[in-house]
Amino acid sequence: MEFGFLGLGIMGKAMAINLLRHGFKVTIWNRTLSKCDELVQHGASVGETPATVVKKCKYTIAMLSDPSAALSVVFDKDGVLEHINGKCYIDMSTVDADTSSKISETIKAKGGYFLEAPVSGSKKPAEDGQLIILAAGDKALYDEVLPAFDVLGKKSFFLGEVGNGAKMKLVVNVIMGSMMNAFSEGLTLAERSGLNPGTLLDVLDLGAISNGMFKLKGPTMLQNSYSPAFPLKRQQKDMRLALALGDENAVSMPVAAAANEAFKKARSMGLGDLDFSAVHETLKAPDHSS
Amino acid sequence: MEFGFLGLGIMGKAMAINLLRHGFKVTIWNRTLSKCDELVQHGASVGETPATVVKKCKYTIAMLSDPSAALSVVFDKDGVLEHINGKCYIDMSTVDADTSSKISETIKAKGGYFLEAPVSGSKKPAEDGQLIILAAGDKALYDEVLPAFDVLGKKSFFLGEVGNGAKMKLVVNVIMGSMMNAFSEGLTLAERSGLNPGTLLDVLDLGAISNGMFKLKGPTMLQNSYSPAFPLKRQQKDMRLALALGDENAVSMPVAAAANEAFKKARSMGLGDLDFSAVHETLKAPDHSS
Amino acid sequence: MEFGFLGLGIMGKAMAINLLRHGFKVTIWNRTLSKCDELVQHGASVGETPATVVKKCKYTIAMLSDPSAALSVVFDKDGVLEHINGKCYIDMSTVDADTSSKISETIKAKGGYFLEAPVSGSKKPAEDGQLIILAAGDKALYDEVLPAFDVLGKKSFFLGEVGNGAKMKLVVNVIMGSMMNAFSEGLTLAERSGLNPGTLLDVLDLGAISNGMFKLKGPTMLQNSYSPAFPLKRQQKDMRLALALGDENAVSMPVAAAANEAFKKARSMGLGDLDFSAVHETLKAPDHSS
Amino acid sequence: MEFGFLGLGIMGKAMAINLLRHGFKVTIWNRTLSKCDELVQHGASVGETPATVVKKCKYTIAMLSDPSAALSVVFDKDGVLEHINGKCYIDMSTVDADTSSKISETIKAKGGYFLEAPVSGSKKPAEDGQLIILAAGDKALYDEVLPAFDVLGKKSFFLGEVGNGAKMKLVVNVIMGSMMNAFSEGLTLAERSGLNPGTLLDVLDLGAISNGMFKLKGPTMLQNSYSPAFPLKRQQKDMRLALALGDENAVSMPVAAAANEAFKKARSMGLGDLDFSAVHETLKAPDHSS
Repeated sequence: MEFGFLGLGIMGKAMAINLLRHGFKVTIWNRTLSKCDELVQHGASVGETPATVVKKCKYTIAMLSDPSAALSVVFDKDGVLEHINGKCYIDMSTVDADTSSKISETIKAKGGYFLEAPVSGSKKPAEDGQLIILAAGDKALYDEVLPAFDVLGKKSFFLGEVGNGAKMKLVVNVIMGSMMNAFSEGLTLAERSGLNPGTLLDVLDLGAISNGMFKLKGPTMLQNSYSPAFPLKRQQKDMRLALALGDENAVSMPVAAAANEAFKKARSMGLGDLDFSAVHETLKAPDHSS
Repeated sequence: MEFGFLGLGIMGKAMAINLLRHGFKVTIWNRTLSKCDELVQHGASVGETPATVVKKCKYTIAMLSDPSAALSVVFDKDGVLEHINGKCYIDMSTVDADTSSKISETIKAKGGYFLEAPVSGSKKPAEDGQLIILAAGDKALYDEVLPAFDVLGKKSFFLGEVGNGAKMKLVVNVIMGSMMNAFSEGLTLAERSGLNPGTLLDVLDLGAISNGMFKLKGPTMLQNSYSPAFPLKRQQKDMRLALALGDENAVSMPVAAAANEAFKKARSMGLGDLDFSAVHETLKAPDHSS
Repeated sequence: MEFGFLGLGIMGKAMAINLLRHGFKVTIWNRTLSKCDELVQHGASVGETPATVVKKCKYTIAMLSDPSAALSVVFDKDGVLEHINGKCYIDMSTVDADTSSKISETIKAKGGYFLEAPVSGSKKPAEDGQLIILAAGDKALYDEVLPAFDVLGKKSFFLGEVGNGAKMKLVVNVIMGSMMNAFSEGLTLAERSGLNPGTLLDVLDLGAISNGMFKLKGPTMLQNSYSPAFPLKRQQKDMRLALALGDENAVSMPVAAAANEAFKKARSMGLGDLDFSAVHETLKAPDHSS
Repeated sequence: MEFGFLGLGIMGKAMAINLLRHGFKVTIWNRTLSKCDELVQHGASVGETPATVVKKCKYTIAMLSDPSAALSVVFDKDGVLEHINGKCYIDMSTVDADTSSKISETIKAKGGYFLEAPVSGSKKPAEDGQLIILAAGDKALYDEVLPAFDVLGKKSFFLGEVGNGAKMKLVVNVIMGSMMNAFSEGLTLAERSGLNPGTLLDVLDLGAISNGMFKLKGPTMLQNSYSPAFPLKRQQKDMRLALALGDENAVSMPVAAAANEAFKKARSMGLGDLDFSAVHETLKAPDHSS
């Protein structure tokens, strides 16, 4: 089975290598061509433009950094659209529902097939083939490319119409953002009440709400260390978009709204580029009087 | 090693049986004496009053239903105080810090030794010896009774001065209460946005915020089933007490405060005796117009 | 001084009559021409299209119902743009900053002059010439039309660049929306605590926070009467836009966010078309147990 | 008509002088006797102890600084209780409902009559006889002392059972606290969005939500000046007590809860002794990046 693959950032490179290792033929393209070299040693072919990749391969996967890159690869000169008629395009980039819909409609109008398939998970799961794939759009295409998804992820979901992949990611992230604030408030309460917050981490870890995020972030938060795995400003953007989705559907979300304001407070403190756990800083007291 | 054991409710009975099974001698007392029969068959002796139990045993454990029962067993006629001089008292009931301090001070003034040791975990962990024990007070006493704690719990913590056990439970519960609201809002957002909330549960379960509470409560919440494992009004009371602890220490907790108001809303809807996951009902829309 | 006047709804009609009464010459246009008859009796001339009005008058005022009407009158065939070169256009409609900017830029590009001037106040102040005018854009034009603003309003403000009029309205409305919730919570607390909420209104009215909104809305809220002066769904939309403006500028607004979620809750209950004071219903308890 | 008067602080002194000026006979007592001199020049008699004042006068008014002073004057040696049989006691101090109830019950048990009558208003209204009097307790006593209330206040209310005066003050203050936050958020939003916050004050002052608090506090808040008229830590205490009252009665108050957390944040910043408008500081951004 042969795949085109557009975009060789941290995620895309790991995914393309996984495909090659499992015996798929892969034709790659990247804006900076030099990034292709390593993959060529793994057996990849190189296409000169997105258009030539799509022309050559029945299935092309894209893994791009943001909505503007995702749009550019499709709509620019020498882009995906030029040879899309009869071909299949699987966009695994994280983009908003509107961007995804725009790409979907244009590709279908030109006679192509489209699947959105954003992933949950970062560098390590990408390398290990342990991503969670949130696919939506063309169900027949989803079924056809399952062999590739089985290699890239530990689990894939088909969620219905285009846009649902993006929405599912927002829902997961808004829960995560509220949880991070709940956790940060608890750590602060423990510390200021004379309890050892490190012990709180141990107690939490033994109970029903033990989870990977608390385990990973707790120790670094206690050291005021917020090296960005997921930047706070992007988490806050996801909170905003999730609340907007709730607004559209008249869903009142008071806890998420309070968490969002805390993230905004953190942004106003200049913490937007740190890890989203830096929201912890908003609870610090500059002065303990009164 | 010999223990007195006061209080044979669901928790106390399971704990006393565990001690007997592991070779400890146990002298039991319960307000309703007939509840002692089963344990006698496991080898327990029976004391007629709390006072006689304390007189007989160097170490007495109490596991009572609430603060008023905990106070009554100590301060009433034929209570613990009568023979406490030189003896050790370990109160594993869940009581507030003030109740615990009052018992502690009186026992110490009478020449006794005191340890508070509330537990995290309910019936099943009690039976399996898998409780989490949050001890505070007399450190030497803690060290002496560790063999018993090893039988009763999977892990015990010594948290410092009396009151810290109660506080640690509050901190854990306030995080849990905020998380429950975060979860409920996410489930509602998914459902109203046209996503399958059952699929959301599957997606959550694969990611970094997967945890036992989501796994346990998610499916029942989707069925609007709230059979009370932990009653909502008690969860809300813990939120209130945790927020009061925060108030004392000038800790701003906007997310917990928003969650607390949702639990209060649920109480105003008459849901106080259902499981705390019934806060989910506050987000339901009686009518979808506008 | 001669003015064109586009749009004879409730507000526009009252404003045009005021201009006529104070000796201004006015040439009117309305989509439904029959609405012009009454004003002709007051001495108005009629223009057949927006374009002909603008061609005839140096200054044209527009008072249209919403952004789409505001855009249509400018950009459609026979619209304002056709003869705008060298002419002055004052849009007093309530539109968002983006719509206003789009109109402003196009008119200036075509050689016209532009002022946005949304108003605060409804039918009665419009009839009495007691509006508050929030103008922004071309300062020289503002100065030229002050004689008309003096007739239409009790006070006008020049706020700087185009968009600032819309923003100022949002800021006022977000404060108003939070205040309405503060008021509603207080009324509910009084009632449920056994106080007479009518007496609370009297007490409030004598103190430092006495204000027209409490006086006007209090008595009707106590009667659960929410005849729409300002529809709840429009108030909630203004909350959302104000919070979005805050998001853009990294302003954390936890109280407004909580108020917004209450308005969303009211929408989910089907109250969007009632007066914004209907948010009061979100605090009602269907059942008082627990 | 003759009155005893206990407590000559800022408020009490102004009130006692008003009574004297309007022809009432007044017998005063103050813990620091030297404070009595000025009033003697206005015609007051002096009592040596609260007990002697109560013995001499049928009606005794108290205006003390806080609950502990209010309790002390009643229960201490030479206190009010010693001669209360058959006499009338009107406590106008601001105390909580519990303190008020305790005083009420004891006085009634000793054969006396009791009215609680906390006031709304500070020094200036006290001097001008423009207080708002929130009375509760003995209705017949209320009717008897109306001539004095007419001199002290612009309006008095009889609110039913003892405790209702305190509760009414809490309700008014919780609305005020939420409004202050709404106002502060609006000012901050205006400023950060490029609007002139001074102009916002002018616009607000012309509209339906114009009120004395905005007019008084707005200009000083814009200058970051928070000279304490009503200390923030006392406002926050009233928020806490009002929320507790809501908790008792299952009233969900999400906006007040968010406002309370902002006041707590201000306390954690060391602002508790400044004016309650200093909550404005919680919204300031130390750094505007991201």
